Amino acid sequence: MGTRASGPQPGSGRSGTIAAMGEFPLVAAVLSRLPSAEGVLLGPGDDAAVLAAPDSRVVASVDLLVDGVHFRRDWSSAEDVGHKAAAQNLADVAAMGARPTALLVGLAAPGDLAVDWVLGLADGLAAEAGRVDAAVVGGDVVSSERLVVSVTALGSLDGRAPVTRAGAKPGDVVAVTGRLGWSAAGFAVLSRGFRSPRALVAAHRRPEPPYAQGPRAAAHGATSMIDVSDGLVADLGHLAEASGVRVDVDSAALEVPDLLRDAAAALGRDPQEWLLTGGEDHALAATFPPLLGPPEGWTVVGRVGEGSGVRVDGAVVEGSGGWRHYGR
Amino acid sequence: MGTRASGPQPGSGRSGTIAAMGEFPLVAAVLSRLPSAEGVLLGPGDDAAVLAAPDSRVVASVDLLVDGVHFRRDWSSAEDVGHKAAAQNLADVAAMGARPTALLVGLAAPGDLAVDWVLGLADGLAAEAGRVDAAVVGGDVVSSERLVVSVTALGSLDGRAPVTRAGAKPGDVVAVTGRLGWSAAGFAVLSRGFRSPRALVAAHRRPEPPYAQGPRAAAHGATSMIDVSDGLVADLGHLAEASGVRVDVDSAALEVPDLLRDAAAALGRDPQEWLLTGGEDHALAATFPPLLGPPEGWTVVGRVGEGSGVRVDGAVVEGSGGWRHYGR
Repeated sequence: MGTRASGPQPGSGRSGTIAAMGEFPLVAAVLSRLPSAEGVLLGPGDDAAVLAAPDSRVVASVDLLVDGVHFRRDWSSAEDVGHKAAAQNLADVAAMGARPTALLVGLAAPGDLAVDWVLGLADGLAAEAGRVDAAVVGGDVVSSERLVVSVTALGSLDGRAPVTRAGAKPGDVVAVTGRLGWSAAGFAVLSRGFRSPRALVAAHRRPEPPYAQGPRAAAHGATSMIDVSDGLVADLGHLAEASGVRVDVDSAALEVPDLLRDAAAALGRDPQEWLLTGGEDHALAATFPPLLGPPEGWTVVGRVGEGSGVRVDGAVVEGSGGWRHYGR
Repeated sequence: MGTRASGPQPGSGRSGTIAAMGEFPLVAAVLSRLPSAEGVLLGPGDDAAVLAAPDSRVVASVDLLVDGVHFRRDWSSAEDVGHKAAAQNLADVAAMGARPTALLVGLAAPGDLAVDWVLGLADGLAAEAGRVDAAVVGGDVVSSERLVVSVTALGSLDGRAPVTRAGAKPGDVVAVTGRLGWSAAGFAVLSRGFRSPRALVAAHRRPEPPYAQGPRAAAHGATSMIDVSDGLVADLGHLAEASGVRVDVDSAALEVPDLLRDAAAALGRDPQEWLLTGGEDHALAATFPPLLGPPEGWTVVGRVGEGSGVRVDGAVVEGSGGWRHYGR
């Protein structure tokens, strides 16, 4: 596939690079490392894969990660990037209240990329998917000057209704589960040239989304849910907009871990800013009816009201409170 | 989502560019242009989409297209690229014997890309998906110096068994449906700086895969099937390898359309080479039991035998007979 417009030429690659290995041997090497999983009816290697969709519905989401924008190869290993790419997509599926079942991965890569890097990426993707018993079932490898990883995640609602961003009602409580601000703190540490505290750096390299809490919240009766990828305030803003409500956050309910407090002090930063605006930990935020409250493992951090937007401690938050592409 | 490593800065974009518009308004503008379709239970705009999977299975495939490798913006309009990106993925689903139901699209794009280009891409994707009553149900837009389009296609087997590459048996007939060599001829025309014959140029810009023939062949009793994306000989080679058989092609059975014959004469090329090695038309190749033969609309072009590899008119074809990434 592909026109011949500007593909690499034969012999342009070095030994140990994907150009030297060639597309089909590379794909074969990757496939040999991918474990299967329950529900995979036909795995990778054909024109398409076939997955079980037990309740006759499938949940699907796609995200791209670009080298230098979403990860840095001098900061993260190939395995780290695989874990992170898988995590952010699996978290999207979990945020619908669904159980992730499979990943499909596209890799656009320069010909001089090391074969070992690609194999490490595959290992990281498969390992992260394995945390939720999902499998990597399809992929594509193409030539590009810029390294881009595309991940599509599929999942099953197992008979439940999807929990969208649009169901929050005035009076509902707002709750979160999973880490907030850890990845942002790790990013700040790495940006200053440090490699520790290791737990924060590790959190930036390999987020640990609370996957199981997505289906749990759905079964418990969540009225709305979102994956915290842009930052808590920004993503609650998306939820508020979709639901046509206002969200009030009580910052005192957000406990600042000692690790973040110490790192912030060392770097001259405000740890609360990390908690409120740091994305990429892929925590989950959801709303629940007031008499019900959230299930175990969630922390109530606010309340839904009439109106629009997000307020923190009563103050309107200007802007998105999180990072956006293209600087807006 | 995304670290802050090297994203564009505020104010770096020009008016009319996606950087100037910003991610969320851009996504909203794209979403407003996407029609829905039957089977879409929850469309784009949330963490993930929800699709019907009527027979409790879903078919899934992913492909990437890179600017300058798989398309050229000076040769193809944004709508063309959308049509082509959708077509190659929908064809992968059809080649399993499945009916395409949905696309998810990821776009990695430089900040100075025109908003109109992105909207044109979305229109092309939606229009091509609409040819098979499928919908674009999800997407992601991220910043990258190099324009990359990722398309994931989902489909339904509607109760049928998937038709893989691995089921061909000695004695089966080999048949094809759809155009062969048209896209390659159009590429040759464009490469020489011409813009006509328009039908060939159009075939290169917007392939017309015979989507409906995939499910039809499956229902008819195809033993194996593949999407012709790398070229007929190359893709029959993949089918032969997966099935553990040899494929013999009778080139006389491949009728050369006058249009291709004339264009080849004008360009000093061999039209048969286009038919045998040109990919990207996304024709379908399949095998059928000898007493059954193919359904209407298919042409028998060869036979399956014991052994391995592909022979054309009895001669072993060296190499892949088609184009591969990384020059191998």
